[in-house]
Amino acid sequence: MSGHRELTVELGERTYPIYIGEGLLDEAGKLFAQRGISKKSPLMIVTDANVARRHLDRLASVLTEEGFTVVTAIVPAGENSKSLAELERLIGIALEHGLDRKSAIVALGGGVVGDLAGFVAASFMRGVKFVQVPTTILAHDSSVGGKVAVNHPLAKNIIGAFHQPELVLYDLKTLQTLPEREVKAGLSEVVKHGLIWDADFVQWCDDNAEKLTALEPDTLGYALYKGCSVKAAVVSKDERENDLRAILNLGHTIGHALEAVAGYGELLHGEAISIGMVGAAKLAVRLGAPEEVYQVTKRVLSRVGLPVRLPEHLNTDDIMRAMMHDKKFQEGTMVFIVPTAIGAVEINKSVSSSLIREIVEQLKQEAVIG
Amino acid sequence: MSGHRELTVELGERTYPIYIGEGLLDEAGKLFAQRGISKKSPLMIVTDANVARRHLDRLASVLTEEGFTVVTAIVPAGENSKSLAELERLIGIALEHGLDRKSAIVALGGGVVGDLAGFVAASFMRGVKFVQVPTTILAHDSSVGGKVAVNHPLAKNIIGAFHQPELVLYDLKTLQTLPEREVKAGLSEVVKHGLIWDADFVQWCDDNAEKLTALEPDTLGYALYKGCSVKAAVVSKDERENDLRAILNLGHTIGHALEAVAGYGELLHGEAISIGMVGAAKLAVRLGAPEEVYQVTKRVLSRVGLPVRLPEHLNTDDIMRAMMHDKKFQEGTMVFIVPTAIGAVEINKSVSSSLIREIVEQLKQEAVIG
Repeated sequence: MSGHRELTVELGERTYPIYIGEGLLDEAGKLFAQRGISKKSPLMIVTDANVARRHLDRLASVLTEEGFTVVTAIVPAGENSKSLAELERLIGIALEHGLDRKSAIVALGGGVVGDLAGFVAASFMRGVKFVQVPTTILAHDSSVGGKVAVNHPLAKNIIGAFHQPELVLYDLKTLQTLPEREVKAGLSEVVKHGLIWDADFVQWCDDNAEKLTALEPDTLGYALYKGCSVKAAVVSKDERENDLRAILNLGHTIGHALEAVAGYGELLHGEAISIGMVGAAKLAVRLGAPEEVYQVTKRVLSRVGLPVRLPEHLNTDDIMRAMMHDKKFQEGTMVFIVPTAIGAVEINKSVSSSLIREIVEQLKQEAVIG
Repeated sequence: MSGHRELTVELGERTYPIYIGEGLLDEAGKLFAQRGISKKSPLMIVTDANVARRHLDRLASVLTEEGFTVVTAIVPAGENSKSLAELERLIGIALEHGLDRKSAIVALGGGVVGDLAGFVAASFMRGVKFVQVPTTILAHDSSVGGKVAVNHPLAKNIIGAFHQPELVLYDLKTLQTLPEREVKAGLSEVVKHGLIWDADFVQWCDDNAEKLTALEPDTLGYALYKGCSVKAAVVSKDERENDLRAILNLGHTIGHALEAVAGYGELLHGEAISIGMVGAAKLAVRLGAPEEVYQVTKRVLSRVGLPVRLPEHLNTDDIMRAMMHDKKFQEGTMVFIVPTAIGAVEINKSVSSSLIREIVEQLKQEAVIG
């Protein structure tokens, strides 16, 4: 386990470690045992069909060799698996294979698998242990903080819980097979964690953009370590999303609206958030922040290969409506996470919606940095 | 609100009050407001078709008059409503009516409604406020302790959470319309709370059995107050069911097996538990407890009109199998909650299953006290 990084999410009696390193899947058995995952009760690995092909056999055999009883459950890849129907099916598998209150649920995959398996862990027998083994860059975000959920036909992530994992195990090797577009989209939340909290890290992302997109292991390991650290710091101070945790939504108000209007698929989540963060930076400057906030935000996102311009064919009225709907804004003003400098944001509760409309229009004209 | 009783369930920051009294529904508005239920966000009352006819209009209008925005949702009466499908439907209603993170879910009804609405409250937007307004005697048990759940086709109560209410509001008037058999079955858990914790209260039940079954308001109010108090004391010491909370299962090992073998309907839960408690008392004497444990247990249960003899046509092998299945016992021995005296129990982890079989056989021969 040489060269791996470790950090701790401080949450009182729910404190847990995150391990990041190359080849860590091979160490899963020892790390699970160290963290008190039971060998007497079966554990269940939940993964999707794509990830299963690449990594399931390896994880299952490492754990079996270490003496764990392993049950596996495969869900279809994609957001549609985050449903109550899939939850019921997975709990059926757990029951048929004799999982009990001492069992653990292991999420092997990206955000969808983490959210779904996490809610299985939160609700099966009113809560059993949970382990996250993320296999995407984006999942560095969702694997810290304990937010788990499935979707309702009328709204995403609306049925869920806060359920912290016992440990998070990040094997950098599993990221090497990600499609390039997904890599870049995943870096969006990494950069976001710099923008809200740590100017030095933003500078570092700027300097190391090429190595990052090339998935150079040590560079990527450091970036994930820093991203998880910021998220962990924020979550430690506000586990249940009462106030501070809202800063993690930088870029998400515009971003969610873009995803909804474009239809899922045209814009990946990370891409939409990237455009949203450029919008928030433009807004910041209009509200008095130094011009540098906008320049740096746009440059670093461009350098990691993310879009900074809003696709022109998306209708501004539709975008505004989606924003209003998403957050139930009071008429006339909106709550927005707004940068005050690079590495610092504030929650502004009275941004006028007409100003947002202007920003959205300008984002369509945004010059792309070559 | 003259003559009402109040007790507090001590759970640190999740501490909440239970109000018990005649006509308390009329005070719901004030009590909800005192406990911080929001008037700005809509609240949703969940109830079943039977309870809705009797009490929904009254509760809804009291709350509306006090300035709350009230949404109502009615589920079919009966255990089948404790399903993920019903959960999804209720959350759909909540979304359509604009419930948000500050909203509360109110359970108006018995155990089924409390369990279902409680899991809606636990999982909607990862947890919103919850209020219990129980309308059965049995619900005094389920309304304390925060265990909420729905059923899976393969197992009861297997998908759920621990989610404490903000308050419990027990209007004794709502109990006056209960069928006699349900009244008696509900008293089973009341007596159980005496048997595990409070010999004086067992004596009191013995002395007041007639008034209890006649639903004499002050007598019933005191019984529910005492029953809730014992449950609250146990739960305060062991919120997540790690050890002590197991004593609440007195009579339930045999009881659950009888329910499963008889098929739901033949034996009500409270009736099956009553027979189970007589069995536990017989077992206790065999293991060295004073004969009085058995005599008193049987007498007080008989006096409140509960069955103490196991229906002869139920097959002993089936009952034993159901017990083994329910708790995944090690072969040869079983975990049992066993009285050591009236008002005291212990968790015995090595009762031989052959002894249990003997007890089950004897329970079929039990003389019924006239």
